[in-house]
Amino acid sequence: MSEGEGTPPSSDAIRMDVDALNAFMAEAFPNSAPGSRGRVISAEPGRIVARQEPAETMLRPGGLISGPTQMALADMAAYALVLAHIGPVAMAVTSALNYQFLRPCLPKPLNAEATLLRLGKRLAVMDVRLYTEEASRPVGQASVTYAIP
Amino acid sequence: MSEGEGTPPSSDAIRMDVDALNAFMAEAFPNSAPGSRGRVISAEPGRIVARQEPAETMLRPGGLISGPTQMALADMAAYALVLAHIGPVAMAVTSALNYQFLRPCLPKPLNAEATLLRLGKRLAVMDVRLYTEEASRPVGQASVTYAIP
Amino acid sequence: MSEGEGTPPSSDAIRMDVDALNAFMAEAFPNSAPGSRGRVISAEPGRIVARQEPAETMLRPGGLISGPTQMALADMAAYALVLAHIGPVAMAVTSALNYQFLRPCLPKPLNAEATLLRLGKRLAVMDVRLYTEEASRPVGQASVTYAIP
Amino acid sequence: MSEGEGTPPSSDAIRMDVDALNAFMAEAFPNSAPGSRGRVISAEPGRIVARQEPAETMLRPGGLISGPTQMALADMAAYALVLAHIGPVAMAVTSALNYQFLRPCLPKPLNAEATLLRLGKRLAVMDVRLYTEEASRPVGQASVTYAIP
Repeated sequence: MSEGEGTPPSSDAIRMDVDALNAFMAEAFPNSAPGSRGRVISAEPGRIVARQEPAETMLRPGGLISGPTQMALADMAAYALVLAHIGPVAMAVTSALNYQFLRPCLPKPLNAEATLLRLGKRLAVMDVRLYTEEASRPVGQASVTYAIP
Repeated sequence: MSEGEGTPPSSDAIRMDVDALNAFMAEAFPNSAPGSRGRVISAEPGRIVARQEPAETMLRPGGLISGPTQMALADMAAYALVLAHIGPVAMAVTSALNYQFLRPCLPKPLNAEATLLRLGKRLAVMDVRLYTEEASRPVGQASVTYAIP
Repeated sequence: MSEGEGTPPSSDAIRMDVDALNAFMAEAFPNSAPGSRGRVISAEPGRIVARQEPAETMLRPGGLISGPTQMALADMAAYALVLAHIGPVAMAVTSALNYQFLRPCLPKPLNAEATLLRLGKRLAVMDVRLYTEEASRPVGQASVTYAIP
Repeated sequence: MSEGEGTPPSSDAIRMDVDALNAFMAEAFPNSAPGSRGRVISAEPGRIVARQEPAETMLRPGGLISGPTQMALADMAAYALVLAHIGPVAMAVTSALNYQFLRPCLPKPLNAEATLLRLGKRLAVMDVRLYTEEASRPVGQASVTYAIP
């Protein structure tokens, strides 16, 4: 039942829930401004949703949420998804992030749904969709690869 | 001598110099925290260098410059490179940004060298290399596509 | 009922069915060896599935289906998905293709499921998943951008 | 002086020259049609050039060299660049290939210049530029990641 240290990570079970993930993030990034990082709002095997409330500093010309803000949320959601499955012990680092901008990103709460494409021993590859109100009309899509130590 | 409005943008000449680019950026992003955006330090036909001084808020676990900070600088350098060639009139938006993380990014001044791969009528594609001390040992590489209106 | 030329392309309706797409491909690539291109096996609004039977010439060391064969099928599925929605008149060209290799690709019939992320006036962006037997265990994922003339 | 098995791979020295690389490729892909794979034409530390002569089967509508043909050459050049540095013993596999199409690819001999961005213990990341006549006007750019066993 328990995920002992001897059990290899699997996409079938998570080792950290929403609260554990948010607590880990707050500790890992102590210097980030409050509200600047987004938070995990749901976590289940193979899938995580994170959310970012927009702030003035995140806007680009035209009053839209900037590209770097979108990419930061995509990266954070992917990081949380990896951690959820491998646990808080390991130091995972982004290996590649490919972002496609799809639609103007209005200054509304921004959601990132990250799903596992593959959790290997050395690399995890994830798909991330960002959207504001309708998941079927994403503002961006990311393919994110994390290296697992 | 002057780049009249009737002349199509070309990769052979720039329409904005370093000061014009930095002034444009400051106006376009009035709400960004001082120092959070990087600045253009050189501009010539087909090539721009931008630089970001590291700050506490940009660090990730391990004391390294975070991935989103790197991607933001890559995006900013690509944006400045497009603007330098098409001028301040147009509203260019990122269409895609692919980032490869290559080496740990120590908390030193971070440089981004952006070069034009193609300046088309509708799309500009750029290569961006990020490095701290040695250009020959990049910490990251980006391929950035901007849509030109 | 009919999609007149005056109606803009939409992700809600297709203008070419499976047979029309395969006939168009056969005419567009008259010099490709039989069986080397894959064929469309289903088409509906926003989604297409294409399939490639493996051949000896497509294998790489280890007896696996080669990376270029996978990428060619991903590109073909994305092309068919664009054509299905904009019709056979226009000349669409690939603008970017990002491919993530996820698992060894055994020499079995290879499927590519392409879905529309966005169909704009100038760019179409698609997600493509490649798999042999189980769609839930993809061998590869592509993000493909087509420029629409 | 000699590159013994005990010496870790380095970007400062190659272990296979042009002839060794082409011989290895011919043996690794015994079923590929003659001329369908391209060949290495120069190899030095950190850099390789491969070339593909165009054939009828490689053309797309408009008489241009097809996207898959370009991507296959980019992948082959990256593979040769990895092999040149790690030697013929290891089984390297593509982990990701991101391709930007930049200009129409006329049916002329197509060159791919691959350079090392980083050669790590587990991953090699390379930049590949494809061009026909002028290297300064590339038809495509690829960022290719290989996993090293």
